[in-house]
Amino acid sequence: MGKGIFLKQPSLPETPDELRRLIRSGEWTGPTSGLAPGYVQANLAILPREAALDFLIFCQRNPKPCPLIEVVEEGSYEAAQIAPGSDLRTDLPSYRIFRNGKIVAEVGEITAYWRDDLVSFLLGCSFTFESALIRAGISLRHIEEAKIVSMYVTNIQTIRAGIFFGPLVVSMRPIPKDMVVKAVQITSRFPAAHGAPVHIGEPEAIGINDLSKSDYGDAVTIKEGEVPVFWACGVTPQAMSITSRPSLMITHSLGHMFISDLLDGDLAVT
Amino acid sequence: MGKGIFLKQPSLPETPDELRRLIRSGEWTGPTSGLAPGYVQANLAILPREAALDFLIFCQRNPKPCPLIEVVEEGSYEAAQIAPGSDLRTDLPSYRIFRNGKIVAEVGEITAYWRDDLVSFLLGCSFTFESALIRAGISLRHIEEAKIVSMYVTNIQTIRAGIFFGPLVVSMRPIPKDMVVKAVQITSRFPAAHGAPVHIGEPEAIGINDLSKSDYGDAVTIKEGEVPVFWACGVTPQAMSITSRPSLMITHSLGHMFISDLLDGDLAVT
Repeated sequence: MGKGIFLKQPSLPETPDELRRLIRSGEWTGPTSGLAPGYVQANLAILPREAALDFLIFCQRNPKPCPLIEVVEEGSYEAAQIAPGSDLRTDLPSYRIFRNGKIVAEVGEITAYWRDDLVSFLLGCSFTFESALIRAGISLRHIEEAKIVSMYVTNIQTIRAGIFFGPLVVSMRPIPKDMVVKAVQITSRFPAAHGAPVHIGEPEAIGINDLSKSDYGDAVTIKEGEVPVFWACGVTPQAMSITSRPSLMITHSLGHMFISDLLDGDLAVT
Repeated sequence: MGKGIFLKQPSLPETPDELRRLIRSGEWTGPTSGLAPGYVQANLAILPREAALDFLIFCQRNPKPCPLIEVVEEGSYEAAQIAPGSDLRTDLPSYRIFRNGKIVAEVGEITAYWRDDLVSFLLGCSFTFESALIRAGISLRHIEEAKIVSMYVTNIQTIRAGIFFGPLVVSMRPIPKDMVVKAVQITSRFPAAHGAPVHIGEPEAIGINDLSKSDYGDAVTIKEGEVPVFWACGVTPQAMSITSRPSLMITHSLGHMFISDLLDGDLAVT
């Protein structure tokens, strides 16, 4: 994905409903970072009914990588709780199709893939806590550098549920060392958006040997006096698809999220 | 249930594991309030696989009455996450068997009812936040009066998921008016144990016409200067069994909970 994708788009509408319509019509096909500021964006995972109960139990056991915001019943493609009137088959700019653990296509809409036995899961996304960090004066390197956040596969195992198992994927943000406590406090308020960090400092302790080689997204500069801080990441289900091999799994493409009507504040704990 | 059930039992063990063994052997058949202080107790709901996905989606949509602590896969009866070595068929002092929405039995163990297609759900319980209220100097009338907490069916509808729907059941505790804010703050810290109140004051506003007639548990005295405060209640799934009529549903009996190895503090948000 090119540079400049995080630049402001002054001509774009700012309400979730209008943005979803723009994406549905194919007029916006890019990443969603920075769109509809203040509104919750979500990771998407769609699975056949046969795998849905296992995945739901997986989410319950692993709420840091998989914080459930909405589960949409078999056959329905409207996220009726968090985005009434939405259509999950068309309202994301880009989707990945996994079959038996392999990406077989990356597509702009999934009406051709839709089946009546599909169950859809919407999971909280780090954009929510990133806004809160920025409001608190903690600037984020990947945004400064117009990159996708750095993501790494760790040696931390998720808690298995049925067919689903695999390593935890984390995102990393360099934080000035005198802001680390504040970053923990702020992100702790958003358990539905991955919550508090899973690790602070030494990458080797969680099986990451080289921060300059990210498994997903882009590597970013770490400056003198900054500490790498690691949060559970919504890409974990995609990584898990490779280990767990469900017959079919449809997800968002990296950075191309579902824009909901929820406000970031709706996800904050008191 | 008789008076005196909340009296201290000085001869009882205080660790969850020993208590579960005592209950398993049939030596303790009474309610669990006050047992294993400091440890999390849980509501139980067991359903056949055909209804389990709907119920899990119901819990995700209605986390205040149904805060999931653990989901045990089809066929397993060990709550491996929160109580390794436990046996959900024997480790509660009393169970209710519902068939098609009717209670058909109340029994001390359920090995005869066990089937390989059953999925078990453990939900947080108000005992956790009650301990926190007491530690903060808020005394609880039903404990003073050695009664079961007052519970009422409201006119608030839960959010339907598949076959599961029905009214929210709440528990009510009279709180001195200058302690209401504190009670909100304290219980907000325990979303996994029903969390903050759903309503403060006027019972009619949520469809309760007479506080002296509780639908479950016992009515308690409300004194001058006290406000009735209402929390979502773990009896909601039992009430829902009546409206939703799953072919089989097994729950704990009122007040006869599952004692886990989790500490109350494990459920507290930061």
